[in-house]
Amino acid sequence: MIYLDNAATTMVSPQVLDSMVGFYTNDYGNASGVHALARASRKAVEQARREVADAIGANANEVFFTGSGTESDNWAVKGVVEAARPNCHIVTSAVEHHAVLNTCLWLRQQGHPVTLVPVDSNGLVHPDDVRRAITPDTGLISIMAANNEVGTLQPVKEIGFIAREHGIPFHVDAVQAMGAVDVDVNAWQADLLSMSAHKFHGPKGVGALYVRSGTPIRPLLHGGAQETGRRAGTENVAGIVGMGTALRLTQENKDEAVPRVRALRDRLIEGILSNIPGAHLNGHQTLRLANNVNVYFDGIEGEVLLLRLDLLGIAASSGAACTSGVLEPSHVLTAMGRTRAQARSAIRFSLSDGNTMDEIDQVLQVLPQLVADLRAH
Amino acid sequence: MIYLDNAATTMVSPQVLDSMVGFYTNDYGNASGVHALARASRKAVEQARREVADAIGANANEVFFTGSGTESDNWAVKGVVEAARPNCHIVTSAVEHHAVLNTCLWLRQQGHPVTLVPVDSNGLVHPDDVRRAITPDTGLISIMAANNEVGTLQPVKEIGFIAREHGIPFHVDAVQAMGAVDVDVNAWQADLLSMSAHKFHGPKGVGALYVRSGTPIRPLLHGGAQETGRRAGTENVAGIVGMGTALRLTQENKDEAVPRVRALRDRLIEGILSNIPGAHLNGHQTLRLANNVNVYFDGIEGEVLLLRLDLLGIAASSGAACTSGVLEPSHVLTAMGRTRAQARSAIRFSLSDGNTMDEIDQVLQVLPQLVADLRAH
Repeated sequence: MIYLDNAATTMVSPQVLDSMVGFYTNDYGNASGVHALARASRKAVEQARREVADAIGANANEVFFTGSGTESDNWAVKGVVEAARPNCHIVTSAVEHHAVLNTCLWLRQQGHPVTLVPVDSNGLVHPDDVRRAITPDTGLISIMAANNEVGTLQPVKEIGFIAREHGIPFHVDAVQAMGAVDVDVNAWQADLLSMSAHKFHGPKGVGALYVRSGTPIRPLLHGGAQETGRRAGTENVAGIVGMGTALRLTQENKDEAVPRVRALRDRLIEGILSNIPGAHLNGHQTLRLANNVNVYFDGIEGEVLLLRLDLLGIAASSGAACTSGVLEPSHVLTAMGRTRAQARSAIRFSLSDGNTMDEIDQVLQVLPQLVADLRAH
Repeated sequence: MIYLDNAATTMVSPQVLDSMVGFYTNDYGNASGVHALARASRKAVEQARREVADAIGANANEVFFTGSGTESDNWAVKGVVEAARPNCHIVTSAVEHHAVLNTCLWLRQQGHPVTLVPVDSNGLVHPDDVRRAITPDTGLISIMAANNEVGTLQPVKEIGFIAREHGIPFHVDAVQAMGAVDVDVNAWQADLLSMSAHKFHGPKGVGALYVRSGTPIRPLLHGGAQETGRRAGTENVAGIVGMGTALRLTQENKDEAVPRVRALRDRLIEGILSNIPGAHLNGHQTLRLANNVNVYFDGIEGEVLLLRLDLLGIAASSGAACTSGVLEPSHVLTAMGRTRAQARSAIRFSLSDGNTMDEIDQVLQVLPQLVADLRAH
């Protein structure tokens, strides 16, 4: 199998799994307890917290573990808005992940005005548009660091500057960016930053939210006093340890891995655009995640191409999501000005350091014929 | 080490871990994807869903996976209340887990009236008190199946009957009960039921919420369309598989394991009460979880006794939680009429099928002297 769906999720690396297993069957204590086994769990959780903090330039006491990137996004957005004034206005973009976008739209139903800043044809948010969207009631700006579908890197540093200038809390959804770009909460002036372990070879079911000291935020999950009273629920010790290990390894390998993945990406993009007529790149050419290839092909259905690729053992994903039996074109691609047909003809190949040039060449060998076959039908 | 803190968390059983590991490094696909690896994850998640449904007498499409028992409790309570009328009244008990209690108290701050039904000196909720608490505005009744601290089993069947009679959604927090008692959502007339895997030898970081078909509830986590649009977030495939396996094994072993654990429990209670002067049982004598021993000792600090036990390699927990450096006596014990001093002198031993009579006897050998020593100081 050639796995090119790493933006959806990644393989847990063997070293990460090694770091986790002992916490299932040996050091299985509840980190909140008062005995040796509990202390072993507590120690491991706090080490992982430091590993996560180190990776983003934060203090350990500003990192809170959650159950997913989605929970982190929900907590950041609802937590800040509900801690602010009633009718708190939110500025976000039209291309955010649904975990941010649908949370904002739900808050809009609750009476909080929401402005969706548009993007250009490359998927870029323009900082001036963010600035213009700000009102005296704006209580949150939420912009992703890197788009999960088309890989476009947003100017979060410039947007962070604007947010700081206006004294507005700034949330960065860094779920897709972590491990691929340098994440620095201070350089970005981020007050909140969401992460998810399974995007960088950690386990599913664990995420984290960075909350800058002093940022007013209410809990999303009420209950026990875990995470210094900010996020209730027994700590997922093995998952948290896996997240810390995965992030540490990712940081250690990044300088070598990212250029290697970028070379794979560029070969795949170049090969597709030069060998397949009517093929086009989605997303920015240079301000782009090193592992993202998103293309569309005139006159085909991406979902059908996906199934053909799957039959050949190639895993990728499409520019549409099947919701209740209907293929809905990607909100990201339509926000970028693509037609519904163009959006539905898109395919995303997302790479990892585990992929090889040989795999890329195999894809390039079969893809032109597959696209031609689909067009002939 | 003698581990008697199984109500806090349990060891992941080796078979459970075996069922999980393949989903970290081999079948690591995103269950929402469109390729072979994704389908393997989807299949595993749906099998686990059936395993959970079978254990509680539900249909698979009424089981939704979450990130913890706390998330399940938060979702059930907020989800039903916020889907109901404004100022929806909640009936719950004074001895609920903080995941329910603090969620209700937070909703009270938002304008939803909350009635905390009292308990008797055994920790029992009386169904008539629930009936009397109901008003025309009551939109949720939430009562736990078994208390996590003192093990008292609540009359959820009788309360379910009252809820059904009044047409009020009934939530049962079964986090501590699962695996220890027969859980049947139909016999209990439960409309919602919370579970957590790590309480029955599954992994931490995964739970489930049963939602009876037709029960109005809004999502707690907004985002992707996972869990039929009810709970967003990439499915924690390994964790979900572990939960399904753990619950299936627990159900298979229950008829043998529960009586064995009950015998350990009864020996420990009997040994403590007959050999230690000024020792008293907390919780109901017979309507009690098979694995729960909660006792208090006149004139000692439970927290100090815990530390002495820990030095001898015995893991247990106390009737107090250290919140921001202050020992707060258990809300459960104080609701049962214990004084603050009595509550602070309590210790909980919680057993599992992995414990032995020999371990119980070792505890009984050291405990009288430890208590006597503490009293002498």
